[in-house]
Amino acid sequence: MSNSLAVDDVYKTLKEHLPEDKFKELEGVLYGYNCGSPVQSISIPQKLLLLAQSEDFDIQAYRFTAAKEQLREPRIVRLGLIQNSIHAKTTDPVATQYAAIERRIETLIDAAAEMGVNVVCLQEAWSVYYVLFRTCSHPPTAMPFAFCTREKQPWLEFAMDAETGLATRFCQRMAKKHNMVIVSPILERDATHGDVIWNTAVIIGNQGNYIGKTRKNHIPRVGDFNESTYYMEGDTGHRVFETAFGKIAVNICYGRHHPLNWMAYGLNGAEIVFNPSATVGALSEPLWAIEGRNASIANSYFVGCINRVGTESFPNEFTSADGKPAHKDFGHFYGSSYFGGPDASRTPGLSRTKEGLMVAEVDLNLNRQVRDKWGYQMTARYPMYADFLREYKEPDYQPQLIRDPGLGK
Amino acid sequence: MSNSLAVDDVYKTLKEHLPEDKFKELEGVLYGYNCGSPVQSISIPQKLLLLAQSEDFDIQAYRFTAAKEQLREPRIVRLGLIQNSIHAKTTDPVATQYAAIERRIETLIDAAAEMGVNVVCLQEAWSVYYVLFRTCSHPPTAMPFAFCTREKQPWLEFAMDAETGLATRFCQRMAKKHNMVIVSPILERDATHGDVIWNTAVIIGNQGNYIGKTRKNHIPRVGDFNESTYYMEGDTGHRVFETAFGKIAVNICYGRHHPLNWMAYGLNGAEIVFNPSATVGALSEPLWAIEGRNASIANSYFVGCINRVGTESFPNEFTSADGKPAHKDFGHFYGSSYFGGPDASRTPGLSRTKEGLMVAEVDLNLNRQVRDKWGYQMTARYPMYADFLREYKEPDYQPQLIRDPGLGK
Repeated sequence: MSNSLAVDDVYKTLKEHLPEDKFKELEGVLYGYNCGSPVQSISIPQKLLLLAQSEDFDIQAYRFTAAKEQLREPRIVRLGLIQNSIHAKTTDPVATQYAAIERRIETLIDAAAEMGVNVVCLQEAWSVYYVLFRTCSHPPTAMPFAFCTREKQPWLEFAMDAETGLATRFCQRMAKKHNMVIVSPILERDATHGDVIWNTAVIIGNQGNYIGKTRKNHIPRVGDFNESTYYMEGDTGHRVFETAFGKIAVNICYGRHHPLNWMAYGLNGAEIVFNPSATVGALSEPLWAIEGRNASIANSYFVGCINRVGTESFPNEFTSADGKPAHKDFGHFYGSSYFGGPDASRTPGLSRTKEGLMVAEVDLNLNRQVRDKWGYQMTARYPMYADFLREYKEPDYQPQLIRDPGLGK
Repeated sequence: MSNSLAVDDVYKTLKEHLPEDKFKELEGVLYGYNCGSPVQSISIPQKLLLLAQSEDFDIQAYRFTAAKEQLREPRIVRLGLIQNSIHAKTTDPVATQYAAIERRIETLIDAAAEMGVNVVCLQEAWSVYYVLFRTCSHPPTAMPFAFCTREKQPWLEFAMDAETGLATRFCQRMAKKHNMVIVSPILERDATHGDVIWNTAVIIGNQGNYIGKTRKNHIPRVGDFNESTYYMEGDTGHRVFETAFGKIAVNICYGRHHPLNWMAYGLNGAEIVFNPSATVGALSEPLWAIEGRNASIANSYFVGCINRVGTESFPNEFTSADGKPAHKDFGHFYGSSYFGGPDASRTPGLSRTKEGLMVAEVDLNLNRQVRDKWGYQMTARYPMYADFLREYKEPDYQPQLIRDPGLGK
């Protein structure tokens, strides 16, 4: 896959080319029926549309609705996803670059605030990998994702303390300014535990306070992505954070391939689970719209999936572990950030090539309504699976296998 | 949703209306890249195409490929899915109707044999619900799915012994005739355990021998579908059947909403998991293409999902438990049977309105190749989740919840 994509926006492409009646029907099937019809567009102020045009980012906003209840008021919150990129030359001094990326994120968070967003999630390790060369036909593009290089320097210099690091302090200022919960995924340096590195998300409360952190539970060892060169499996379990705008959790990147991980956040009470990711087209694009949505369905909660955009190149050659010659290109991050609802409805995705802000207004009451309707939690038979996994984890586990006697010995 | 669907075949509709370059790209994204490109069509003999036309059923065939290995020969098998309907008047005597449905299934299994199919799976409770009224604009349509009625008579008369019942004996003849493994989902009467009923799949070996049975693990209590009126949660665990053509398991219908159920079949060694289902459009169509595929991805095995077709009506009114007046219509079964591969590739779906035979040629070696590449099993941290579920299943479980101190008491 290259920068010259034939399709920048899947939803718009379908809408543009299909006859209206066929589009209408397929929209329902492919994007889900939220209370009878697909999620509805929310109008975006002209001022923001102009800003998005001049600043070259995609902006989209949708509403998920729920039934009215007698005893609970609707619990309406607006959620935001930001997919972004660098905005200074990669050869500039680090301080200059950090200031530039802060400015860009500030613009996007300010735009989210204009849309009334209450909880925003930034992309995986948003503030960290901003000092690499890049080869790209249309700036701005994504920040390079350095884990393919296996190099420890200079990348690990950009890890920071979760509670006191630059990115956290910046997000605290923004959170306070906008009365907004901010989820800030960073590379964490854990000075109190042997200086080890973690892939961590920091949760900042709407008053600008540090609520806590949660670490990436599942670490890929896939081709370019052996991230365990840098950090290991998280030790924070499946924390859920109760904020002023709902109970949120963060399933970072590769954890989205693990249904048990999604499940545990749900069983701890998460109403919204964010999945900040960095993943490229040839590897995972067919999985992208499946896994997040399946999680939202199976666990009856809202999911917000974020992926970066752009094609990146590194200064030193590296192997992809796929039999090809060493090379400097990593692949195309295809953006496509989206929200999925518990009722299998979803928003369209953001652009596959541009930065963007995705906004969803949700009524958190929908989660319990769907649980009552589908009953997955009631019919899940957790004790059976607790027993199953207890037995399965033993090295001498005997699978429940019935062999056709006709096969002989 | 009514019988007059604007889209009978999603894949063909996209192919027909999208510009070629956009279709090509979206095909890769939506249907997956199997070893670099979407699954390939297999040519169907002219004789079969004519039969499908004259007998009015859809027939499609595709190939999933895998990399060549040095020490393992390719393990090529052909799999089949049949979505079918009744073929006698619902007011005919039961014996007449059973003979008619047998003839129809025989035609479809014979067609599968012509395509070289080694393992075929029939739809949920295929031989049972064939004695109801139906209102349908274009016969043949699906067999009615009687669980919405809550009536015990006459439906429970059609339950049969798994090992000796009519459907099993028929499948044994067909299996022997074609050297074919047949998965036969039936309604089972368990005379040795208090005459209780189960929703069961019987596995017939390619020599016509009875290998065993496996029961539906998760039972819906969703609107019309409170099937626990008739049978309860299965007690056969997560059996996997080693046949001449691979290790297979059967996740019946509602079990597809449960990731742990899919997982357990995979951990017991399943290479192919069938999901015979009966589900209607307004309820579940947006979930259909998500859940089976997610299972194939998360568990690195092949999945074959089957759904019946047609719109049905029952003689006595029943409530849908959705606040609407009692009524006789159940909804539209949308067919769309398909195969998903471990690498996120999938076949198109069969027709949303017609009976059909879906054939997939797979190289079972692909499963382990994908496991080696993605490493989900290695990175799954099963012991952590065994502990998690052990704690979670206790009534006094305390979720791992961190409350924003700024929220006050």
